Amino acid sequence: MGFWKNLFTGSDPASAPKATQLEEYSTEVVGQYTSGNARLFFSTEREIDLYELEELCDAVGWSRRPMRKVRKALQFSFLVMTIWEQRSSQRRLVGFARATSDHAFNATIWDVVIHPTYQGKGLGKAMMKQMIKQLRTEDISNITLFADPQVVDFYRGLGFMSDPEGIKGMFWYPD
Amino acid sequence: MGFWKNLFTGSDPASAPKATQLEEYSTEVVGQYTSGNARLFFSTEREIDLYELEELCDAVGWSRRPMRKVRKALQFSFLVMTIWEQRSSQRRLVGFARATSDHAFNATIWDVVIHPTYQGKGLGKAMMKQMIKQLRTEDISNITLFADPQVVDFYRGLGFMSDPEGIKGMFWYPD
Repeated sequence: MGFWKNLFTGSDPASAPKATQLEEYSTEVVGQYTSGNARLFFSTEREIDLYELEELCDAVGWSRRPMRKVRKALQFSFLVMTIWEQRSSQRRLVGFARATSDHAFNATIWDVVIHPTYQGKGLGKAMMKQMIKQLRTEDISNITLFADPQVVDFYRGLGFMSDPEGIKGMFWYPD
Repeated sequence: MGFWKNLFTGSDPASAPKATQLEEYSTEVVGQYTSGNARLFFSTEREIDLYELEELCDAVGWSRRPMRKVRKALQFSFLVMTIWEQRSSQRRLVGFARATSDHAFNATIWDVVIHPTYQGKGLGKAMMKQMIKQLRTEDISNITLFADPQVVDFYRGLGFMSDPEGIKGMFWYPD
């Protein structure tokens, strides 16, 4: 996690990027990190170029989904979290996650993706911590998700429990 | 299920109650059944007396929750389903369920409750089928829920699968 140790230190003037640079992109920046020429920042702004999101999802091998539905899903998600890599004037989407919610008790996290370039460097963990922090700010106390087998331990490391008290995640799909 | 065989037969003139009677309560009636002096109807109308909902939840022993948050949760749920028992001019809330959703891909069903008087008579199953039908109408294809151990088989009977392909439902709660 050392690589990302400076994340969420926006209050530290030494690590804070110039306000004008951030304002170009979003007023919803919630965390940042500087590494060499690249700066990474987390945002809850949900105006995302859907082609860029598709590119990110392609990079991890996800099936393509109709953009019309992706647009609607973003619009009706309670929280959308993105990670942007910025080099000089170029920025690139390198991380994404979103959550549905009743705005009161429960949230469910979906579509957690980190670009392969940044996998294994603690960025996914940092993003999930940021998701939890944001949801807690909104007084959501029950945060849920459905984890593929290979990431169950990853989420366990973040404090997620599988099948607590025998509660089972269940799915219904059309025939 | 015989007891509920007439549910969702609103198109059958013989079983359809008078329109004026239904209109008193809701324009969102989606299913109905007549049994002796009592008529039961399903509704997606979300203007619910919160005290009545609390009474229903009390009847099954759920912990009370702040009404302010319950109101918000209803407002931001994608689908709210209620079952009403009507005898002459009296009506009583006897069933409830709701779902959060991104309005595009996923829905998660929460707070499924049937009044003890009506448990074991197929009403829960009928309500869940109605939930699935409504969500399918909205083109939601991934319907999820978190089932307590004693109701896993109930949901399995409705076509829900637990841990398909090793996917685990996981929970995070504040310390």
